[in-house]
Amino acid sequence: MSDRKLIILGTASQVPGRERNQNGYFLRFDDEGFLFDPGEGTQRQMILAGVAVSGITKIFISHFHGDHCLGLAGVIQRISLDRVPHPIEIYYPASGRVYYEHLRDACSYHNEARLIERPIAASGVVFEDGRLVIRAERLDHDIETFGFRIEEKGSYTLIPERLAREGITGRAAGELKEKGSVLVGTREVSIRDVGEPLPGQVFAFVMDTRLCDAICSLARDADILLTEGTFLSELEGKAYEYGHLTAAQAGMIARDCRVRLLVLTHYSQRYTSLDALVEEASKFHEPVIAARDGEYISFPKRKRPI
Amino acid sequence: MSDRKLIILGTASQVPGRERNQNGYFLRFDDEGFLFDPGEGTQRQMILAGVAVSGITKIFISHFHGDHCLGLAGVIQRISLDRVPHPIEIYYPASGRVYYEHLRDACSYHNEARLIERPIAASGVVFEDGRLVIRAERLDHDIETFGFRIEEKGSYTLIPERLAREGITGRAAGELKEKGSVLVGTREVSIRDVGEPLPGQVFAFVMDTRLCDAICSLARDADILLTEGTFLSELEGKAYEYGHLTAAQAGMIARDCRVRLLVLTHYSQRYTSLDALVEEASKFHEPVIAARDGEYISFPKRKRPI
Repeated sequence: MSDRKLIILGTASQVPGRERNQNGYFLRFDDEGFLFDPGEGTQRQMILAGVAVSGITKIFISHFHGDHCLGLAGVIQRISLDRVPHPIEIYYPASGRVYYEHLRDACSYHNEARLIERPIAASGVVFEDGRLVIRAERLDHDIETFGFRIEEKGSYTLIPERLAREGITGRAAGELKEKGSVLVGTREVSIRDVGEPLPGQVFAFVMDTRLCDAICSLARDADILLTEGTFLSELEGKAYEYGHLTAAQAGMIARDCRVRLLVLTHYSQRYTSLDALVEEASKFHEPVIAARDGEYISFPKRKRPI
Repeated sequence: MSDRKLIILGTASQVPGRERNQNGYFLRFDDEGFLFDPGEGTQRQMILAGVAVSGITKIFISHFHGDHCLGLAGVIQRISLDRVPHPIEIYYPASGRVYYEHLRDACSYHNEARLIERPIAASGVVFEDGRLVIRAERLDHDIETFGFRIEEKGSYTLIPERLAREGITGRAAGELKEKGSVLVGTREVSIRDVGEPLPGQVFAFVMDTRLCDAICSLARDADILLTEGTFLSELEGKAYEYGHLTAAQAGMIARDCRVRLLVLTHYSQRYTSLDALVEEASKFHEPVIAARDGEYISFPKRKRPI
């Protein structure tokens, strides 16, 4: 069963506020659980949002500014304490390895976590299996920062009438789904003959960057683009200076990269209300959601077969 | 003006819960601000409790288990970001120096904080000035742990009638208060002749320990004893095994050490209600307060002159 949700753990840039914790995002993607940029307090935000650390399969750190990584220490300790039995991969910019190590060894505890380090030294594919391709792209911030694209590979929906016509049932159908073809008597039937192509879904994560080409490389045709909309356009100069995006820029990116759902986050603490940020992005693209702590955001319905 | 309050930032042992953050305590003592055992999320708990990091003058870490120190990283970064101009002393067990360093350098930021390290290698006085004596005592936990006693030195309340009798006014009274004596003509008048002794107030901080003699050495005659009451007595064996106190033991300590106000904290997550913990401690001592996140606890009224 498909269970795909983006769960918002925190939305504040730089410092936490009364209403917003520092960053933290959990993407439930069927049996995978991807934790992005755990800021301080993520351990508790997960409890409040009803997400167990045992659900994490991979962790992604875009960069080592505190609001994007300080919570890693607590998350690793909780993984350890709960004796999560499966290995968890941690992707982070290789240049920040010392910070990863300091966060992992921030205090005295029995480290039982099965952590697999995946330091990223350059843009490119960082993970691939039969179902997913994950790519990291270097962004344009004042320290090394990577954005991420989680892309589900295309598959096929088997059409019952066509299967029946070919005499394919039960185990043979399973083999067809798994291998892409199956022998029926002496004839090889391809999944293309009996299925309709089903495009995979795409999630893009873009945090802490000036406008740059890498963004669209990550976000193109994404079902969800989760990106910073740190400032309003009136502070575009400041955004550029500090290596950030405005809400308007996020909207233009979503439009130009043909994103389906744009989700804004990483708000400057100066914005009590998020309405103006949404309004600004909406001039260029719809729909736009302003992420709020604790919110569950469902994936848009799958695109129909091509 | 005397402004003395204990502000509770977090009360959970080991892991945070929905209602309770990990440890964190701020003692406002006139112009001093002492932060004790900042667990993860203390930065935000301070915001929620209305305490600015600029109010911190000293930080005390009892030991380097995560629930007592992980928040140090965020607090130091916030001190830096807010450009707190004064130096801040940080007291911690010397054996955990590497953890202090990892927490201070947990990620990339411009460290502008004026931090003065005070690693503690043995029990004894760690700070003294004209007004305060601060002592650390080694406790009995599974890693090196120190408790703290903040003791205000005794002083005198000047009695107006006696001053008038001695012909002491204005500047002379100031000198008397400052130096303990003043020349009136050719005669030296001591503060003892014109004042009533005023005992200083005492705050004791005892966290993560089995019963041991050091506790009473810290807590004797304290106005406030803030101590763990992690478990109920039915788990006394477990408390001993893990190096903790039960609420009953906290009550007995308060009784035996003639504490005025006993404040319990550091609750095991198994206790949703704190009533049973208070009830247990109250069998041995009163008054008892069960600390709650965000609570302000005033010092008991000063003891009357002896």
